[in-house]
Amino acid sequence: MSIMIVAKNKDIKPWLSAFKKYDKNIDIQIYPSIKNKDNITFALVWSENDIDFREYKNLKCISSMGAGVNHIIKNKTIPKDIPITKIVDEKLVESMWEYLLTVVMNITTNHYKYIKNKTQNIWNPLIPKSIEELTIGILGLGQLGSSIAKKFNTMNFKVKGYSQNKKELKGIYTTTKLDDFVKDVDILINLLPLTSQTSNILNKELFLKLNKNAYIVNVGRGEHLVENDLIEMIKINHLSGAILDVFVNEPLEKSHLFWKHPNIIITPHSASITNPFTATKQIMTNYQRVSNNQEPMNSIDKSKGY
Amino acid sequence: MSIMIVAKNKDIKPWLSAFKKYDKNIDIQIYPSIKNKDNITFALVWSENDIDFREYKNLKCISSMGAGVNHIIKNKTIPKDIPITKIVDEKLVESMWEYLLTVVMNITTNHYKYIKNKTQNIWNPLIPKSIEELTIGILGLGQLGSSIAKKFNTMNFKVKGYSQNKKELKGIYTTTKLDDFVKDVDILINLLPLTSQTSNILNKELFLKLNKNAYIVNVGRGEHLVENDLIEMIKINHLSGAILDVFVNEPLEKSHLFWKHPNIIITPHSASITNPFTATKQIMTNYQRVSNNQEPMNSIDKSKGY
Repeated sequence: MSIMIVAKNKDIKPWLSAFKKYDKNIDIQIYPSIKNKDNITFALVWSENDIDFREYKNLKCISSMGAGVNHIIKNKTIPKDIPITKIVDEKLVESMWEYLLTVVMNITTNHYKYIKNKTQNIWNPLIPKSIEELTIGILGLGQLGSSIAKKFNTMNFKVKGYSQNKKELKGIYTTTKLDDFVKDVDILINLLPLTSQTSNILNKELFLKLNKNAYIVNVGRGEHLVENDLIEMIKINHLSGAILDVFVNEPLEKSHLFWKHPNIIITPHSASITNPFTATKQIMTNYQRVSNNQEPMNSIDKSKGY
Repeated sequence: MSIMIVAKNKDIKPWLSAFKKYDKNIDIQIYPSIKNKDNITFALVWSENDIDFREYKNLKCISSMGAGVNHIIKNKTIPKDIPITKIVDEKLVESMWEYLLTVVMNITTNHYKYIKNKTQNIWNPLIPKSIEELTIGILGLGQLGSSIAKKFNTMNFKVKGYSQNKKELKGIYTTTKLDDFVKDVDILINLLPLTSQTSNILNKELFLKLNKNAYIVNVGRGEHLVENDLIEMIKINHLSGAILDVFVNEPLEKSHLFWKHPNIIITPHSASITNPFTATKQIMTNYQRVSNNQEPMNSIDKSKGY
């Protein structure tokens, strides 16, 4: 009965110390150095990986190390009956909210423009935007998206929300029609899960329907964005810029043209960082549940992909 | 009965259209092109100026065009019995709050560090600070400072406040002792009025008592800050950086070393912009009051200087 961590390119020290703090005797093995594959009953998985899950005969559950699971679902070796779970962390909502509040306020108060002007010694006071005048559009109304929408609404921003299945949120215009959603939006925030339907959703066709001078905020997945469409829309001055936290390849390649683009802000997948101590508690609960042949908590719907 | 506007280096067009909107027949004259000095009963003053107020025999009130009055008080030609008034604008509080929220959130979520890292192609996720761990110190608990302190407190930041005269604010540690105030502060926000006691208050001695890696936010006046002390404290890594909205000379000279400093953010006196339409209403009320020999509203205490 051991837990296996599958996490290429990730510092797992904080996770190991979180597990030790939770239970000193727990056996944790780090892929690919697995002593006895038959001992592994629980897998904790970060990025996309070359592991063949079929070799782990006693595996009972595969847990993501964060809120997203697309990196797990891509792996075609997962037996049908093994549940996939995600981390549902109230702290993740807090961390995402703080990130998005920062970004939206920088846009509202022209702070990004002043930071850019400083690089050229430009002193140019601008007329500030009023919160009431700005419309924030939130793509994705899951646990995160719904909380974020409500919080911006409380601050008096106009908020619109899009989801694939109709969702009611008090005081907020929600729709399942993308065309109705994008109209009048000044700040587009993408919080969608990555599925075959949502891949490349942030494209030229969508951008052209936003208000002129809109900003794009991508905190979903890199694959949601058609990068060349973004560059083109900024170039023709239809979009003001973008704030990107996620990329197809992470870390973003040193040679990527986003690094030098004056209207694109890059953050290193930091909008919503799973706290290992909070997550470990959920993981251990699920580990114990599946050990006792109970259903794990927070398992995803494999047909939907999230 | 005319209003005189004294505003070197300021675009007064929005003010003129605000007055015209308020009262088509009002006579407004722009210093120094004054037709008949004896007609002037009310002066509206922006920056420091060479005007000799003694030449205006029928002047009844001098109003600032914003919240600050130090530029007016410096002028030694103002007869003792002429009241000086300031603009008290709820929108000014809102605008200042939005500015400070932006700045504080950028610090909390490491956004300034990511923006700096981007200039060097650096991908480096940092452990985010938790709101509950950060202490914001607010210098100056007037109308603006008190509102701002309460708002940050509501967000769960620890807040400390300093004022020259003891001020009680529920749930917030307030003091009149600078040494008690600076202890444990991570983000120092200056909202003090500029007086002989507060000039140069942001100096090395004060900075050294703040927490290591603290940030300085100056939205008071440029003269509050000893610029070389700030540069030195950042250089020895005691301070992380500064966000400055006000400067001794504005616009900030093109040759000033702040422009090229990687840890200093510059905004062009934009934290709190007086809305001419809102302000005009207050100014016209005072214009009418003094015309009827009534005391104007929002006049300052000349002995205190604010």
